[in-house]
Amino acid sequence: MAIITLTTDFGYKDHFVAAIKGAILKEDSNTVIVDISHDIAPFNIQECAYILKNAYSHFPPGTIHIIGIDAEKSPENEHILVKVDGHYFIGSNNGVMSLITNEIRPEKIARIDIPNLDENSFPELEVFVKAACHLARGGTAEIVSKPFKELRQIKEFEPRVLDGGNTIVGNVIYIDNYGNVVTNIQKPVFEAYRKGRKFEIIARRVKINAIYNSYNGIINFQLEKNQRKGPGDLLALFNSAGFIELAIYKSDLNSVGGASTLVGLSYRDTITINFI
Amino acid sequence: MAIITLTTDFGYKDHFVAAIKGAILKEDSNTVIVDISHDIAPFNIQECAYILKNAYSHFPPGTIHIIGIDAEKSPENEHILVKVDGHYFIGSNNGVMSLITNEIRPEKIARIDIPNLDENSFPELEVFVKAACHLARGGTAEIVSKPFKELRQIKEFEPRVLDGGNTIVGNVIYIDNYGNVVTNIQKPVFEAYRKGRKFEIIARRVKINAIYNSYNGIINFQLEKNQRKGPGDLLALFNSAGFIELAIYKSDLNSVGGASTLVGLSYRDTITINFI
Amino acid sequence: MAIITLTTDFGYKDHFVAAIKGAILKEDSNTVIVDISHDIAPFNIQECAYILKNAYSHFPPGTIHIIGIDAEKSPENEHILVKVDGHYFIGSNNGVMSLITNEIRPEKIARIDIPNLDENSFPELEVFVKAACHLARGGTAEIVSKPFKELRQIKEFEPRVLDGGNTIVGNVIYIDNYGNVVTNIQKPVFEAYRKGRKFEIIARRVKINAIYNSYNGIINFQLEKNQRKGPGDLLALFNSAGFIELAIYKSDLNSVGGASTLVGLSYRDTITINFI
Repeated sequence: MAIITLTTDFGYKDHFVAAIKGAILKEDSNTVIVDISHDIAPFNIQECAYILKNAYSHFPPGTIHIIGIDAEKSPENEHILVKVDGHYFIGSNNGVMSLITNEIRPEKIARIDIPNLDENSFPELEVFVKAACHLARGGTAEIVSKPFKELRQIKEFEPRVLDGGNTIVGNVIYIDNYGNVVTNIQKPVFEAYRKGRKFEIIARRVKINAIYNSYNGIINFQLEKNQRKGPGDLLALFNSAGFIELAIYKSDLNSVGGASTLVGLSYRDTITINFI
Repeated sequence: MAIITLTTDFGYKDHFVAAIKGAILKEDSNTVIVDISHDIAPFNIQECAYILKNAYSHFPPGTIHIIGIDAEKSPENEHILVKVDGHYFIGSNNGVMSLITNEIRPEKIARIDIPNLDENSFPELEVFVKAACHLARGGTAEIVSKPFKELRQIKEFEPRVLDGGNTIVGNVIYIDNYGNVVTNIQKPVFEAYRKGRKFEIIARRVKINAIYNSYNGIINFQLEKNQRKGPGDLLALFNSAGFIELAIYKSDLNSVGGASTLVGLSYRDTITINFI
Repeated sequence: MAIITLTTDFGYKDHFVAAIKGAILKEDSNTVIVDISHDIAPFNIQECAYILKNAYSHFPPGTIHIIGIDAEKSPENEHILVKVDGHYFIGSNNGVMSLITNEIRPEKIARIDIPNLDENSFPELEVFVKAACHLARGGTAEIVSKPFKELRQIKEFEPRVLDGGNTIVGNVIYIDNYGNVVTNIQKPVFEAYRKGRKFEIIARRVKINAIYNSYNGIINFQLEKNQRKGPGDLLALFNSAGFIELAIYKSDLNSVGGASTLVGLSYRDTITINFI
């Protein structure tokens, strides 16, 4: 069965998401519809790309992903259809797709072109559903789109390498449900400059000298419980998406706090790694 | 496959929604279940009707919509089954259905009557699922309901036309995920009294003289970017549901704010349109 | 079709839940996936057990329930597979399963053992999906698990019976979307000690002398509306899960408040019942 996913900034209360699902099921009630997230911060292109990039690849090849953020068509924001990594993405040319495709070359970039649609205030419903259901039925992209070359590039925070490779300065790109702070520093970059050296990660007043592969890496299970590190302690790890992340073990933003609140880190803040 | 939608004020954390889904799947695991919204403000009949009305019509005819709000049966709140516009609605006679059916005459209004059910504190699970799954299997409404005439009417905010048609006074009926403010003034009413005249929309201290058909209608793409209106600017538009809406272009309630916070508008507040 | 449910503390914004759904659909796109809740308070074992216990039994026998909370494998937190009440549960040995199984004896308790998996920072995706999809395909538990005996016991709040059976002291175990306060006192325990006597429920400064079977039990529909109790009034009832619950009729935490805010009750607070 065809799978269509939805990633939007519509939230979970309004009727928008359900209207889209109804319209898809009206075309084919066998379609499998999966929510990726509807809590993207409104118009936040980077956040949308981070979440979608870490979710889409777990779906089967051929999955169709509708991106419902900043979707209004304008002379500067065409509706586009991109095939990359065996997946279809349908959205507008607002920069999300350039962030999704910055590591894998797209197989196809096209401008959606379906005659006689109302492209006004709800294009996800009027345009994206039509294009997605066409693909879901096995239709070719060529029927609903025209060639298009100019994927809009958007400036992404890239870690900077300073001092002849002795320092990496990264940024916070995401804070998750636990208050864990995700940086833009990926494991291969870190290891390439580390060259086996010791290091310190500096985030505001905090210094960390180890990076684990799991949250409980901080725990020494050989010790008695009252002698161990544990809930409330700060650590760094390579998270499941491959990025260096600062976390509080067993954090809860609504009670004990998380790394974001306890260290005082927000989106875009810098994290410095010095190799020693 | 049969489609059953759910609209409730249960929220997304508690077990209630999942219990209902489990009970539906226990009757037939092929049923397609779609969430319309579970974030209706508790017992808010108008909000429930606004969201459901704007969502249901996008689903295929024959879809069964369970309404899980203020559902406890009482002498004044019968469980009802209504067919309108080709769709089935199952809920209680609390006013939601009178708001849903105020523009389209219902084909059927019936009182749910299924013997030997526990109608106590969770009727959505015990009663509505039974009635919905009966319809989903292709059963007739007559088997699970009895004739019923008195759909409870609820007072809805209607725009008032004053000064011999020179003024329309409407109300805020909904504030969406972006802080956009939806009024109860629909395009046909507006145009009928406008008769081609100029107008001003007055909302608290703000005056607006144009209504667009899309959010980016405010942007003049001929101008250089630094000379345009853009993010943060207020506009009025006919939204995708057909209502006049006040919006901030690219708003975000958690950062720059939205029309509701920046103009200072809440549910039920008045909006005045003067034709000049 | 096989049904897999998900109960996690991942929230609704991050990519984690969607990644799991994608991975399940990659194994078999016919699988029915149902969210039980993703808003469990992070690492809150009791809350997870309360929600899952009240939801799972409404699903068909054979349903597979993935529990994504505190799932990191450690010497003290094995990945386990439990069959109880005809349902499969896959999670870690963190105490949730001892709370789920404290009234029904499990048919099977096993330790998940699948070779060559990355068990690091996202075991729900890497391990639980594999085990769940194996069962969903009709595979036997023995292929993916080894015998295991020691289900980790967790201290649950139990109501205490004092004064020779004249007093029951219970605790708040859950506060729902309406601010209704759920206690750990179940109807059979209450009735066993009540023996037909009058009683008073004491919660902070509030005393209640009746327990209804529905929220509108408080309303006397024989009286004129202005003489009745109604919205805003406090009551006690046996909720649909069988527990004594304190509720405000037609409460809303965002406007009029709920029992939790109006009486001042939080998780773990005590409620006393005196039989007179």
